[in-house]
Amino acid sequence: MDRIIDAVRQHRDAFDTPAVVVLGEVLRENIARMQAFADGHGVALRPHVKTHKSVDIGRMQLAAGASGITVSDLHQAEVFAADGVDDIFLAFPLWPSAPKAARVRRLLETVDLKLGLDSHEAVDATVDRGLAGVDRLELVIEVDCGGRRSGVAPSAAGDLARYAADRGLEVAGVFTYPGHGWALGAAEGAAHDQTAALAAAASGLREVGIEPRIVSAGSTPTFAWSAAPGITEIRPGEYVFFSMDHCDHGICSPDEIALFVATTVVSAGPGNPQIIDVGTMAIGREVDDRGHYGRIAGGGGAVTRVNEYHGFLDPGESPPHPIGTVLPLIPTHSCTAVQNASELLVLEADGTVDRFPVQQLGPMLAARERS
Amino acid sequence: MDRIIDAVRQHRDAFDTPAVVVLGEVLRENIARMQAFADGHGVALRPHVKTHKSVDIGRMQLAAGASGITVSDLHQAEVFAADGVDDIFLAFPLWPSAPKAARVRRLLETVDLKLGLDSHEAVDATVDRGLAGVDRLELVIEVDCGGRRSGVAPSAAGDLARYAADRGLEVAGVFTYPGHGWALGAAEGAAHDQTAALAAAASGLREVGIEPRIVSAGSTPTFAWSAAPGITEIRPGEYVFFSMDHCDHGICSPDEIALFVATTVVSAGPGNPQIIDVGTMAIGREVDDRGHYGRIAGGGGAVTRVNEYHGFLDPGESPPHPIGTVLPLIPTHSCTAVQNASELLVLEADGTVDRFPVQQLGPMLAARERS
Repeated sequence: MDRIIDAVRQHRDAFDTPAVVVLGEVLRENIARMQAFADGHGVALRPHVKTHKSVDIGRMQLAAGASGITVSDLHQAEVFAADGVDDIFLAFPLWPSAPKAARVRRLLETVDLKLGLDSHEAVDATVDRGLAGVDRLELVIEVDCGGRRSGVAPSAAGDLARYAADRGLEVAGVFTYPGHGWALGAAEGAAHDQTAALAAAASGLREVGIEPRIVSAGSTPTFAWSAAPGITEIRPGEYVFFSMDHCDHGICSPDEIALFVATTVVSAGPGNPQIIDVGTMAIGREVDDRGHYGRIAGGGGAVTRVNEYHGFLDPGESPPHPIGTVLPLIPTHSCTAVQNASELLVLEADGTVDRFPVQQLGPMLAARERS
Repeated sequence: MDRIIDAVRQHRDAFDTPAVVVLGEVLRENIARMQAFADGHGVALRPHVKTHKSVDIGRMQLAAGASGITVSDLHQAEVFAADGVDDIFLAFPLWPSAPKAARVRRLLETVDLKLGLDSHEAVDATVDRGLAGVDRLELVIEVDCGGRRSGVAPSAAGDLARYAADRGLEVAGVFTYPGHGWALGAAEGAAHDQTAALAAAASGLREVGIEPRIVSAGSTPTFAWSAAPGITEIRPGEYVFFSMDHCDHGICSPDEIALFVATTVVSAGPGNPQIIDVGTMAIGREVDDRGHYGRIAGGGGAVTRVNEYHGFLDPGESPPHPIGTVLPLIPTHSCTAVQNASELLVLEADGTVDRFPVQQLGPMLAARERS
């Protein structure tokens, strides 16, 4: 945390706020530490790139030893494929519409692509789009482990895998996301739910004669308990940056937070809160356990309300900040702050600054560029 | 609303969801209607372009008679200036740091620029950056009318205007934003607060010998009561698209909603809600009075929870939608849906589709392109 405060002190006059800033050294340490964890536990690390949407950071993760990457949508897959990444897992139950099937086919020219899937309907649609028996394409069956989002019950994974295989599709294994591990104190329990669900799903596949090569677990909050026997890979994403709520939940230390948003106090406001130039259009509307949208590194207040371009900073115990002060805001959620930025400013300890473009554009533009 | 349902029926197989779709005819009607309102009430219409971030739509507004545009940040000003717009009001208390002052100076080469301002500190910083007595630059003093965000008390506007003028800055007038008019039933009262605050602020300027040429009011929810005597311009933004909560609050009719997000049901989910491919990364986390993030046009359910890439659709009274169904989701807030899109698909009644790029990149990339 001291490094964040130092960085702002050093660069105060140069930031064109709001600016998303990453501490290069902390980022590299976070990447190395997670890779060492995976290596030490004998699981592959397949980081989720939705957090950073940066091919520069993706390259660092692969260079450190990641086995491939995880993405949320075809656009992310396309961006990283264009940069040479050739092993991509789309961990989302993609519906293979005609436009999406065409994009999948294009990706398969250069990428070993694994698609998440959780329904007989999606199996049928995948076959109907001519994607059965296609080289480099594999399915990974999604199971629910308690997050109650997408995914079939673990006991249903074998049936779905058999159905897909019988229709000519290649099934590589199973995956889950322990989303209920985000709440305070819930990570370890959710990770155990995850282990149990994956074990049941994997054995369901074996019962129908399919050996799961991939048994894939989340996630940053649960990573410490996710390398259990039987699990072959983990897919954390946010560990590259972390954020304040990871500290609050005991998932990281303050010195492991790598990302902040440089913001300026622009108005004293008529009431107690001060106004900063960071609102939902910069950091989204994610709150931590205290209802805060972000907190100033090292104290100095919390963002207690957001409009689109205005953040309401309550200085709390601190004296009010003079108008014009540049402050380091740690957003509650790093992913949404990155989503709204065009680039990451990567600060090194020696004062140099790199600019990493963020590939935040949605799938529509990608489709147009190709049509 | 029927037109939205028809549009989805017609294009179902072509949408690469999530896609932000605008009905061209409704958009043009909304633009014409607001212009007719302004013309009929003798006020200028200076639409806020943060809603659409589209130079194509900005051009339509100017062609219809808008006097200029309103923006939230320098990046929006730069994008529209590059497209030839030469009268821009930045309605945000910009802090003139060194990088921002350089950008302001560049804009002034082609733009009559009005900057919002609400503090003596910002006046001093503007002077210190060499922006006093500069051609084409005017200040507009922001006052608070009850929204309790930025802006000085109306009674303080005269003092601040005099201070700025004495330091060599050109003061054009006063503005306010009636943000407290968003709540259900609050619009008319907030508009009256706005009229009173602007009248007090304008008379404060006159008392110190400054005739306010601009007395500027918001906003889409309050527009119907914002053309009161003494007000010279209105700055609504969302009226180009509206959304469901504008209908709920009596600000528009269902047939005036011009924007929806085409989404696909991708999973049945283990519980009652179904999973669609629209989460916070597509529509943000804005809720309406019922706590919904969006609703399916014409019935069919509401989004009751969002993760980053997953939306939880509760079908409500409707039967569950088969996996693979494309549905028209009306997001609770149009601005945040546009913010996350790379383009708007503009559907015409004859079935043709235009693609309007969205200029959603933040200020950092713009700064880089120029450095």
